[in-house]
Amino acid sequence: MDPMIERALSGDARSLARLVSEIERSGERATELMKQIYPHTGKAHTIGITGSPGAGKSTLTARLISKFREQGKRVGIIAVDPSSPYTGGAILGDRLRMQEHALDAGVFIRSMGSRGNLGGLSSATHEAALILDACGYEIVIIETVGVGQSEVDVVKVSDTVCLVLVPGMGDDVQIMKAGIMEIADVFVVNKSDRDGAEKVAADVKVMLDLLPERDWRPPVSLVSAEHNRGIESVIANIDLHRKYLNETADGKNRRIAKIRTEVENILKREVLERVAKEWQRKLDGNVLERIEERKADPYTIAAECLDEIIAK
Amino acid sequence: MDPMIERALSGDARSLARLVSEIERSGERATELMKQIYPHTGKAHTIGITGSPGAGKSTLTARLISKFREQGKRVGIIAVDPSSPYTGGAILGDRLRMQEHALDAGVFIRSMGSRGNLGGLSSATHEAALILDACGYEIVIIETVGVGQSEVDVVKVSDTVCLVLVPGMGDDVQIMKAGIMEIADVFVVNKSDRDGAEKVAADVKVMLDLLPERDWRPPVSLVSAEHNRGIESVIANIDLHRKYLNETADGKNRRIAKIRTEVENILKREVLERVAKEWQRKLDGNVLERIEERKADPYTIAAECLDEIIAK
Repeated sequence: MDPMIERALSGDARSLARLVSEIERSGERATELMKQIYPHTGKAHTIGITGSPGAGKSTLTARLISKFREQGKRVGIIAVDPSSPYTGGAILGDRLRMQEHALDAGVFIRSMGSRGNLGGLSSATHEAALILDACGYEIVIIETVGVGQSEVDVVKVSDTVCLVLVPGMGDDVQIMKAGIMEIADVFVVNKSDRDGAEKVAADVKVMLDLLPERDWRPPVSLVSAEHNRGIESVIANIDLHRKYLNETADGKNRRIAKIRTEVENILKREVLERVAKEWQRKLDGNVLERIEERKADPYTIAAECLDEIIAK
Repeated sequence: MDPMIERALSGDARSLARLVSEIERSGERATELMKQIYPHTGKAHTIGITGSPGAGKSTLTARLISKFREQGKRVGIIAVDPSSPYTGGAILGDRLRMQEHALDAGVFIRSMGSRGNLGGLSSATHEAALILDACGYEIVIIETVGVGQSEVDVVKVSDTVCLVLVPGMGDDVQIMKAGIMEIADVFVVNKSDRDGAEKVAADVKVMLDLLPERDWRPPVSLVSAEHNRGIESVIANIDLHRKYLNETADGKNRRIAKIRTEVENILKREVLERVAKEWQRKLDGNVLERIEERKADPYTIAAECLDEIIAK
C-alpha cells in the first residue's frame, strides 16, 4: 500500500489533505490511489447540502456538525464552489462560520474549486468524499455555494441530498429548472422566523405532489439555523433517509444506481484519456488543413477516427 | 439538404433559431445537421467577449454591434450564461441593453444557458457560432456573463478573445487564476473616465511582459462604452488581430490549432456516446452489486470494460 494512504488511514490529517490534492490532479497516479482506497470505503453517510446563495447553508452546516459531534461522530466537510478558481487551503467568505470547528480534531474541512481537476469537479468531489469515508469520517458533508447545474452534479453523488430554501428569495423557478427538486431527499426551510416560511414549506409539499410518486417522500423541516432551532428535525430526517437506503428494496436500488453513476463517471474520464492518445496520432497537420479549407468536415473526420479506435 | 437548413441559409431567422435549438439537444440528428452546415462556414469572424460581471461587457457589445452595422456587416450575438438554466428565448438582465438592436434584421441575438446540451456548453456555443457563420453573419460575438472556467472554455473557440477590465474591481487575481490572460488577444479597459483606468492598462502591459513572447502582442484599449468613447480603437485592434490570423504563418498555426480543438471536442462527445452504449451492456446488476459490497472496485471494473471496447 502507498505509504501516504497508510498514514492517512491511520489518522494523519496532513497525509489526508495531500491525498485529496493528488486525486484532484487526476491521471494514472490518482486512479492507482483510488483503487487502493476504495476497499476501505462504504461506511460513511454522505450528505449533500445545496440551495441558493444566502439561504444559510453554511450556518446550517455548522449546526449539523455540532450535533453530529455531540453524537461522537467524526465529520468531514467538502466546501465546493464551482465558480471559484481556488482550491485546497482557501476558505471562502461564508465558510469562516465553520471555523469554530477548525481546531476540533474530529472535524476535517476542505474546500474545492473548479481548477486543477481534469476529471471534472463532481468526480473530484466524489473521490474526496470517498477518501474521507476511508479515513474514518462517519459523516461527510458536501456543501455547495449555489444551486446551478454544476452544484446539482456535485451533490448528486451524496447518499442524502438536502435542499435549503428560505422565504422571500423567489428562487423557486431557478431551483425547479436546475432539476434539484427531483433529486432532493430532505428539504429544509431555513429562517423559519421570517414571514412566509410556512408558505414555502407548503409550496414544497405541493410541488412534491406533482412529482411521480416514489417510495421515499422527502420530508420538510422548518429551521432557524441562526437561532439553532429545528436542527434535531433535520438530523432525524437524514437518519430516516439513511435507514430507508439501507433497509428497503427501493433504497438498495438507489444505492446500486449510485454505484452505476460512479463507474460511468470513471469510464467517461478514462475513455477520454485513452482515446486522446490515439487520436493525437491520427489528427496530423494534413487532415486539419483540409478541414480548415472546408474540403473535409470535422464531424466526418471524428467518425472515421472513432471507427478505427473503437472495436465494433 | 435538410429543408430547415435550406431556409436558414436563405435568411429565415426562425429556421435559424430552430436550428440552434436542434444542435443544443445534441445527438445524432445534431451531428447530421452540423455535417451539412460545416461546408458553408469559415467566412465569419468570431469575437469572444469576457470579463468580470459589472465590467460593462453588454454595453461594449451593443456599441460594437452599432459600429459593425455602420460598416454594413450582419452581426450575430450569442449571450452565454453557464450558471443559468435558461436558454433560447430568454434574454438575461443586462442583455436588455442590446434590445435596441432587437428589431434590426441584420442582427440576430440568442442566449444560451447550461441546460439541454449534453455535449457541453462550449461545444453548443461553438456550433451555434458556426450556424450563424453559415447563415451569413459576418461578425459573430460570443458574450459571457462572468470570467470563470466555463466562460474561458466558451470563448476559447473564438477567433479573437476580448477581455474587458475595469478599474477598482480588484479582480486581477481571479482573472489570472482562471487562465484568461493567456488566451486574451485584445484587452479593453472600460470605464476609462474612472480613477485608476490608466493604472489598469499599465498593469496589463506589465503582466503581458511576464508571459512567454508570442508573435501577436495583445493591444490594450482605453474605452468608455457608456459614453461611446474609444470603440473605434477596439474595432481597429480586432481587425489587426484578424489580419494577423489570416496573413501570417503564426496566425495560420493558430487557426490550425483551433481546428484541432474543434475536432477533439467532437471526438470527446462522440466517443462518450458510442462507448456508453457498450458499457450499458457490460455493467449488469451483478457487477454493480459486487462493487457495492466492496468485493470489486469501480476503477478496476472500468479499466476491464475499456480494454474490451477499445482496440489496442
